[in-house]
Amino acid sequence: MKGNVIVGQSGGPTAVINSSLAGVYRAAIDRGAKKVYGMRYGIQGLLDEQYIDLSKYIKSDLDVEILKRTPSSFLGTCRFKLPDIHEGGEIYERIFEILEKLDIECFIYIGGNDSMDTIKKLSDYALISGKPQKFMGVPKTIDNDLAVTDHTPGFGSAAKYIATSTKEIIRDGLGFSYKKKMITVIEIMGRNAGWLTGASALSRGEDCDGPDLIYLPELPFDTEKFMSRLKKLLEKKDVITVAVSEGIRTKDGTYVSELGSSVDYVDAFGHKQLSGTASYLASLISQEIGCKSRAVEFSTLQRSAAHIASRVDVDEAFVVGGEAVKAAEGGDSGKMVVINRYSNDPYQCSFDIYDVHRIANDERLVPREWISKDGTDVTDEFIDYVRPLIQGDSPSVMVGGIPRHLFIPVKTKREKAEKGE
Amino acid sequence: MKGNVIVGQSGGPTAVINSSLAGVYRAAIDRGAKKVYGMRYGIQGLLDEQYIDLSKYIKSDLDVEILKRTPSSFLGTCRFKLPDIHEGGEIYERIFEILEKLDIECFIYIGGNDSMDTIKKLSDYALISGKPQKFMGVPKTIDNDLAVTDHTPGFGSAAKYIATSTKEIIRDGLGFSYKKKMITVIEIMGRNAGWLTGASALSRGEDCDGPDLIYLPELPFDTEKFMSRLKKLLEKKDVITVAVSEGIRTKDGTYVSELGSSVDYVDAFGHKQLSGTASYLASLISQEIGCKSRAVEFSTLQRSAAHIASRVDVDEAFVVGGEAVKAAEGGDSGKMVVINRYSNDPYQCSFDIYDVHRIANDERLVPREWISKDGTDVTDEFIDYVRPLIQGDSPSVMVGGIPRHLFIPVKTKREKAEKGE
Repeated sequence: MKGNVIVGQSGGPTAVINSSLAGVYRAAIDRGAKKVYGMRYGIQGLLDEQYIDLSKYIKSDLDVEILKRTPSSFLGTCRFKLPDIHEGGEIYERIFEILEKLDIECFIYIGGNDSMDTIKKLSDYALISGKPQKFMGVPKTIDNDLAVTDHTPGFGSAAKYIATSTKEIIRDGLGFSYKKKMITVIEIMGRNAGWLTGASALSRGEDCDGPDLIYLPELPFDTEKFMSRLKKLLEKKDVITVAVSEGIRTKDGTYVSELGSSVDYVDAFGHKQLSGTASYLASLISQEIGCKSRAVEFSTLQRSAAHIASRVDVDEAFVVGGEAVKAAEGGDSGKMVVINRYSNDPYQCSFDIYDVHRIANDERLVPREWISKDGTDVTDEFIDYVRPLIQGDSPSVMVGGIPRHLFIPVKTKREKAEKGE
Repeated sequence: MKGNVIVGQSGGPTAVINSSLAGVYRAAIDRGAKKVYGMRYGIQGLLDEQYIDLSKYIKSDLDVEILKRTPSSFLGTCRFKLPDIHEGGEIYERIFEILEKLDIECFIYIGGNDSMDTIKKLSDYALISGKPQKFMGVPKTIDNDLAVTDHTPGFGSAAKYIATSTKEIIRDGLGFSYKKKMITVIEIMGRNAGWLTGASALSRGEDCDGPDLIYLPELPFDTEKFMSRLKKLLEKKDVITVAVSEGIRTKDGTYVSELGSSVDYVDAFGHKQLSGTASYLASLISQEIGCKSRAVEFSTLQRSAAHIASRVDVDEAFVVGGEAVKAAEGGDSGKMVVINRYSNDPYQCSFDIYDVHRIANDERLVPREWISKDGTDVTDEFIDYVRPLIQGDSPSVMVGGIPRHLFIPVKTKREKAEKGE
């Protein structure tokens, strides 16, 4: 490799997005890149010339390992959509000016659908303008809703966290079951795609029944049917656990979370948060059935619990990062690394690249045939698909009893002012 | 040991309460107990003759290790307060009848303050009635609010979970911080005692600032001061994390959770759940400050996340179980095992027994001098006290990618009916 590499992270973070970053860094260094730059806060930060020389922060092989185990986006993230090329000439000129200044050969962007749109536009612009830089996408999202790739790095670790925590919560509930009935409603991320909510079924085994009912956002939610199912279940069982997606909607498209919640706040991107689905249902159960109920939200922990990341996921995230560098060095541009699966058992997959122009901006949902007929569970096919992705552990490097993370020291405004920055 | 041992679990579970159960079982077997019985659902189940022969479920040394790593109460729990001896003769007669039938020499009860009350009453009754059985208490609670003992098994693992998850959430927030301000409010268990909320400070280190503000229930919460502190902090920092106890109250004693929440449900014991503190504050921040805010509740996971239990805690829980059996065999009754600490660094402690009659039914709160002057942080002394208790890992036995638990097969009513039970 003759030039330098720049890498950025975009969209919501995952437990393993930094493993991809480590993969990019390692592959770039191994292939002789002189410098590996990291964009702070994705393309948005880059436009303000916010970037760092990664070798100043990754100083050893140990640092690479710690980076692989550091959750959230090490570099910072953004949600920034590039304008269409014919409308945003100035922004593109600005970006390429910076890339040229930094002698960038490969531009790697780790993200979801929006990030692949960025890769598409930048590679198109380079083609049109005769620029030499190559642009490659690295997939990531806990939601597993990216098209073309068999699955997305980040999903396996979130699924492992969800399966483990669901199992721990079910067991917690069983302890209280004497002469008492109790229903626990667990709320899981996934606005439109039910992959994460379905992963709660992986808690099922000889030592755990798993959730009694699972509701994915792919199918309309019927509150009355839900209540009558619960009443029927209570005739057989005292302790019932329900897993619901934050995004379940009634037949007319109303989010269940909007039916009762009075708490109103927005997430980092200004989206109205869909929390409150489980709270609402637990409250409804308590009113209509009269038994004890409780709501548990996995919230942000689903995407940040690196301490229980899946080894398969950490390793794959690392590999896809490296594959992107290899492809860019080989002359590919405007493409995304994808994972193809050959076999569930033994789990075998290979890595390939795919033209981002051919990826429709679609969310990949759980296929109807992987949801049980009555819409309250996932099938064995679903479980066979997810199971290999949650295998193996990636133990944290523990310091002072808690996981160590790699970090970029943040200067406060006061510190900056004191130093005249 | 000539007779048999019976052991029960009571009150809210912890990640290591079964490690104490394993300690009781192992010590009893090692000392020649012919049978080790487990009460299902504590004394409440025992009154209905709900008990099991533990050796039917703990069949190997591996099972002992898996039991140590199984969260929640393996035997099931209850909250059942024995009547005063002079008022409840019949209940006491019933209990001793069962103990005699089972040839019980030692009765071990694992629990908190209420459980120690049970030990006191049963040992008193035995003394008065000339019964030979010995009664010993084994302390447990995530809240760490038991008097006399330096700390309580269960606290260390909950503290480790809280410190780790707080760190992961802080890092998650930092990723979003470009040209955005965001405040995260984390809600932590502990109705009256702030040990768990304070443990969020253990996330602090070279690689993490820790929470910017920490509010324990020991001090009154002032919403106006809180808001003005946040505004001041926002001048210096873009991403702010606040840790609050579920039990914080305003000066007049009103729970903050009651100020805004419309969600109304009760826990397994019929207590009104105090969830909603973080949601309310996040909503208030969003309204009054206008920046992004989010609420995270650790909820039930704090007491059930065995997958990140502290090794020190798992081991100590095991030892206190065994010590109770030893003491009972040696003739002690009406006593609880306690932990004495000699040194923080290196951490050294010893185990002793203490007369339950001398334990006032007080909640041990965080001393004022371990809370910072302005009431928004804990001191170094607090951290030095907690740090040794979160050390070391207790890796789960993983099967199918998730932790394996030891379990008692539950028969459904239908199964029981089919078998004519």
